[in-house]
Amino acid sequence: MTRAPLIDGLQYAKWSEKTFRQMRAGGVDAVHVTITYHETFRETVLQIEQWNRWFETFPDLIFQGRTAADIDRAQAEGRTAIFFGSQNPSCMEDDIGLIEVLHTLGLRFMQLTYNNQSLLATGCYEAEDTGLTRMGREVVAEMNRVGMVIDMSHSGERSTLQAIEHSTRPIAITHANPHQWHPALRNKSDTVLRALGQSGGMLGFSVYPHHLAGGSDCSLQGFCDMILRTADLMGPERIGIGTDLCQDQPDSIVQWMRSGRWTKSVDYGEGSAAHPGFPRMPEWFNDNRDFGRIADGLRAAGLDQSGIDGVMGGNWRRFFAQSFGPAARGSEKVERAAE
Amino acid sequence: MTRAPLIDGLQYAKWSEKTFRQMRAGGVDAVHVTITYHETFRETVLQIEQWNRWFETFPDLIFQGRTAADIDRAQAEGRTAIFFGSQNPSCMEDDIGLIEVLHTLGLRFMQLTYNNQSLLATGCYEAEDTGLTRMGREVVAEMNRVGMVIDMSHSGERSTLQAIEHSTRPIAITHANPHQWHPALRNKSDTVLRALGQSGGMLGFSVYPHHLAGGSDCSLQGFCDMILRTADLMGPERIGIGTDLCQDQPDSIVQWMRSGRWTKSVDYGEGSAAHPGFPRMPEWFNDNRDFGRIADGLRAAGLDQSGIDGVMGGNWRRFFAQSFGPAARGSEKVERAAE
Repeated sequence: MTRAPLIDGLQYAKWSEKTFRQMRAGGVDAVHVTITYHETFRETVLQIEQWNRWFETFPDLIFQGRTAADIDRAQAEGRTAIFFGSQNPSCMEDDIGLIEVLHTLGLRFMQLTYNNQSLLATGCYEAEDTGLTRMGREVVAEMNRVGMVIDMSHSGERSTLQAIEHSTRPIAITHANPHQWHPALRNKSDTVLRALGQSGGMLGFSVYPHHLAGGSDCSLQGFCDMILRTADLMGPERIGIGTDLCQDQPDSIVQWMRSGRWTKSVDYGEGSAAHPGFPRMPEWFNDNRDFGRIADGLRAAGLDQSGIDGVMGGNWRRFFAQSFGPAARGSEKVERAAE
Repeated sequence: MTRAPLIDGLQYAKWSEKTFRQMRAGGVDAVHVTITYHETFRETVLQIEQWNRWFETFPDLIFQGRTAADIDRAQAEGRTAIFFGSQNPSCMEDDIGLIEVLHTLGLRFMQLTYNNQSLLATGCYEAEDTGLTRMGREVVAEMNRVGMVIDMSHSGERSTLQAIEHSTRPIAITHANPHQWHPALRNKSDTVLRALGQSGGMLGFSVYPHHLAGGSDCSLQGFCDMILRTADLMGPERIGIGTDLCQDQPDSIVQWMRSGRWTKSVDYGEGSAAHPGFPRMPEWFNDNRDFGRIADGLRAAGLDQSGIDGVMGGNWRRFFAQSFGPAARGSEKVERAAE
């Protein structure tokens, strides 16, 4: 491939022919899509069935991605490779055997927590973060074995640092920004970002307004300057985009994301009673056709072409290549050392 | 490959390291194993989880087979490829979307019925056979699309003939014998066998005593003579072995197979109140080390080496190769004509 791939590290849009055509119009080669939050295993399979229908209906636009080679295939065929992920471990219920089953079905990322305590670790909204649970350590090892990426985007700091430490393969924070730039609960401390970078992990920069300095009014220049500073902190090969694009979703969806079935009340998450719905997107990013603006912003901010190619997809491609296959037996440390 | 493969078209043993080692001792390259009867989707996934544990525990003996190329791999690596199948459509519940999901998980055969009426067709123990249901026709088309073999081993005659006719790809009767040789309810009429052969389908000969003339006392010579006569009826390329080996299973399993959760009484199936359990196996076939005896019997009965190679696995290999992949778009008739 001569052209560097364009990859988004997380989206949860209300997908439709429109959004798939926008992926093609924007030249997006691969997207990690959230298929499940609080859904049980069986409910998650229903989401996979829906994706299978989309793959069958729109074969000229999208197909299911399983390995990094599918990114090359997407580029060669002018389609978008869709990689599945979960934002909470509800899909594996309390059954470690479901990790391999879900991996076979194509799940390539799983967050150990959403905002709350899970069976595996602590979410970033809990008052106290007790780190990886007994089951959490077992599940991290199983995810390492089969080739499913541990995603700590919504987890607490201690849990995240323990996941980085305990995992024998690099992990990801697919959609968040530095806490130092914008001190939201969901953004990550320099301590976490440094450990993530040093371990070979990846950060995907979010354009979800609650994660942006200035919120919906955040400037493209401010966003891109932040990316360059984070490159200095983590290393230029450890960063990518993870937009957290929730395009066309009704506000009932953000309620499902936040409240699931764990409360009979309403949890406002990053919103508030006055602003309970999805926030307005920044004017420079509304859909899959807008990635070119970010690339242009990075160029204007002073990043060279190689750096831009890495942020816009090259780094995710390398990470996908090292992450989605089964661990070679006994080679875990070698693999990490090779990083 | 210089050596013809050795393939068993159906087993449902109580698997263990012992049975896997016997597969290797017997030089068995591939086995279609039943993983589920009346289990729901989630319960079927639990069976897959159990198989994943076996694959992880005994990687030098077995691995999961997904394509015909895995038979070559099994031969090259001295392991046995395990292909999943279901003896009833309970695993797909009432959800046609589960066909593709189960195929992704490796299910390569599904019976449209066990002994009773299902949502899809009529089992061979029902008083009246109404053929394929409305859903049955849809599911056959979906199985054709994804590459899952329609298995009519336990179905009624009319349903079986309709499945042969309606399916755009050849189907299988993985474990049964000719009714003319032994008039058991489970054995198949010449009409069915002729239609099966003409459509490119496959019959796997069963050594389960209830399917044998003379039952447990059936002679190897009688069994092999029957195979040669069936070759004349169906064509020498349309036949293989499908032992229906239920080695080491307790009698509680045959009760589950027969009665599932559809009755509070006991259904004796092919047994009787006096003989409710598994029947005694014929002295010439007890486990996976005994396939050589069948090959020797076929030679003694007058079959040439090419014919023996076909029956013992070559025919199944060709059938697997044409059956397990997705249907080429719009090529269904071409594929069948190429037969």
